[in-house]
Amino acid sequence: MSARPYVAVIGPAAGTENEHRTAEEVGRLLAEAGAVVVCGGLGGVMEAAARGAERVGGLVVGILPGDDRHDANPHVAIALPTGMGEARNVLLARTADAVIAVGGEFGTLSEIALSLKLGKPVVGLSTWSLAREGLAEDPIRRASTPAEAVAFALHP
Amino acid sequence: MSARPYVAVIGPAAGTENEHRTAEEVGRLLAEAGAVVVCGGLGGVMEAAARGAERVGGLVVGILPGDDRHDANPHVAIALPTGMGEARNVLLARTADAVIAVGGEFGTLSEIALSLKLGKPVVGLSTWSLAREGLAEDPIRRASTPAEAVAFALHP
Amino acid sequence: MSARPYVAVIGPAAGTENEHRTAEEVGRLLAEAGAVVVCGGLGGVMEAAARGAERVGGLVVGILPGDDRHDANPHVAIALPTGMGEARNVLLARTADAVIAVGGEFGTLSEIALSLKLGKPVVGLSTWSLAREGLAEDPIRRASTPAEAVAFALHP
Amino acid sequence: MSARPYVAVIGPAAGTENEHRTAEEVGRLLAEAGAVVVCGGLGGVMEAAARGAERVGGLVVGILPGDDRHDANPHVAIALPTGMGEARNVLLARTADAVIAVGGEFGTLSEIALSLKLGKPVVGLSTWSLAREGLAEDPIRRASTPAEAVAFALHP
Repeated sequence: MSARPYVAVIGPAAGTENEHRTAEEVGRLLAEAGAVVVCGGLGGVMEAAARGAERVGGLVVGILPGDDRHDANPHVAIALPTGMGEARNVLLARTADAVIAVGGEFGTLSEIALSLKLGKPVVGLSTWSLAREGLAEDPIRRASTPAEAVAFALHP
Repeated sequence: MSARPYVAVIGPAAGTENEHRTAEEVGRLLAEAGAVVVCGGLGGVMEAAARGAERVGGLVVGILPGDDRHDANPHVAIALPTGMGEARNVLLARTADAVIAVGGEFGTLSEIALSLKLGKPVVGLSTWSLAREGLAEDPIRRASTPAEAVAFALHP
Repeated sequence: MSARPYVAVIGPAAGTENEHRTAEEVGRLLAEAGAVVVCGGLGGVMEAAARGAERVGGLVVGILPGDDRHDANPHVAIALPTGMGEARNVLLARTADAVIAVGGEFGTLSEIALSLKLGKPVVGLSTWSLAREGLAEDPIRRASTPAEAVAFALHP
Repeated sequence: MSARPYVAVIGPAAGTENEHRTAEEVGRLLAEAGAVVVCGGLGGVMEAAARGAERVGGLVVGILPGDDRHDANPHVAIALPTGMGEARNVLLARTADAVIAVGGEFGTLSEIALSLKLGKPVVGLSTWSLAREGLAEDPIRRASTPAEAVAFALHP
């Protein structure tokens, strides 16, 4: 079972309707491809991705900032309450083989950065744009559809 | 699925043969009772408990001290590489509804203490004895068989 | 400055008057010996040790479980708000060259265990007694006075 | 002492000579203004900022990713070995009242993001540019000189 890829879907707890639809589709496609879906375990984009995966029988891991396992959304099969606040973002990045960002606030940006720091491929669906002098291109790979994002994440 | 109890089985990476047999039996009984088995993900007691659970179809979560998911023993279904060293012991304590200690070195003692601090029931099979002035009894509940330990952990 | 020894004084947030007197004396003696006093930054034994050190010009570091630096007691010179709850206990153990436990509840026990795990000498003043089959003696070194505890911690 | 502002100076372990000169000047100005300088404790920008502060008598705190206090650069007065790898970046963000980024790789980007998430003002000297649809301006405040960066950080 541990040979299955782990893909994190990250994004805000209060995304737009469009972001939630996108995340749900990403979750569904990841599960259909046999990936374990890792998320922050709460609402919004996290819940949408979890719902998409669970509905087709996928396995969803939620890594929670708080200390109560029961705060996880109902689509999470395995909930890890870290009690470490934003420090849990590092655990998401470490656990995932690849990361798909859907939308994103500052917390999502930190997960993107930590994933890049750890050498994990990061795919973005309408998320942050990053630029720095001397950097030829944005280190986030852009996808325009959930299917493209999933393909990039599984075959970086 | 999140309604299932999560029980951590903790103990040394290099336990005695007897401790490993005990841990495997504990893992088996927990899985048969429908519990998710949480462990430190490495060898020794951790691996024995995982093997016992997996062999009867149980679900095993491994919370690793290192940063590589593939360090988990082969019976772990969901591996979380924390990269936080001994700080991961807190995550074990937080994630579990109850804890069963089999044998134990200082790392196990820290998991026992953190679990007690967080109000989780701790059952011991030949593990540490704790005493303190003014404390009427050892806060670790003693069990003499794996079956008794599992019964205590699931019905504290 | 980094050549100075770092000694953690650990104990409950609500200790007895006697424990507080003891911790204050420990803090004072550590500071007079040139040690940096590390503590959990809150009240009770933590505050008493910090007060004892600060009053003779010692430097006190507080490693807080919460996320607000201003929760530190007024004798802490450098406050680190970890926002990680009990996971901060590992940071205390890592930072210290030696640990002195004064009294102690489960949180203190976890700091003792983590320090022992990390190979740091642990000295106890009326704290936990630890026993395990096959272990010849309690791994906590007993001291009967603050002066003896400080001597053990600085010259283990 | 806890009333003094804590300002983190963040940037790569292997910055350019120009970044190091800038960081040293930032460290010096912060110390002269009475701030505690917080950094990641290692080389490059971290060491330059620490050197600048220490040379004028400032107090420097280093929050290290590894588990050995002695890995800190020689200008760090108080070293905290976290043993948590990149998870220590959260501690930098939590500890600081404001953050100044000098240059920056992905680790620095994660510290910027975590600081923004926690509501801390972030000032940038030739660092990342962040953009997102619907976001009117870069959440990093640009400074063109060390003096301007320090002024922004202390009076956001």
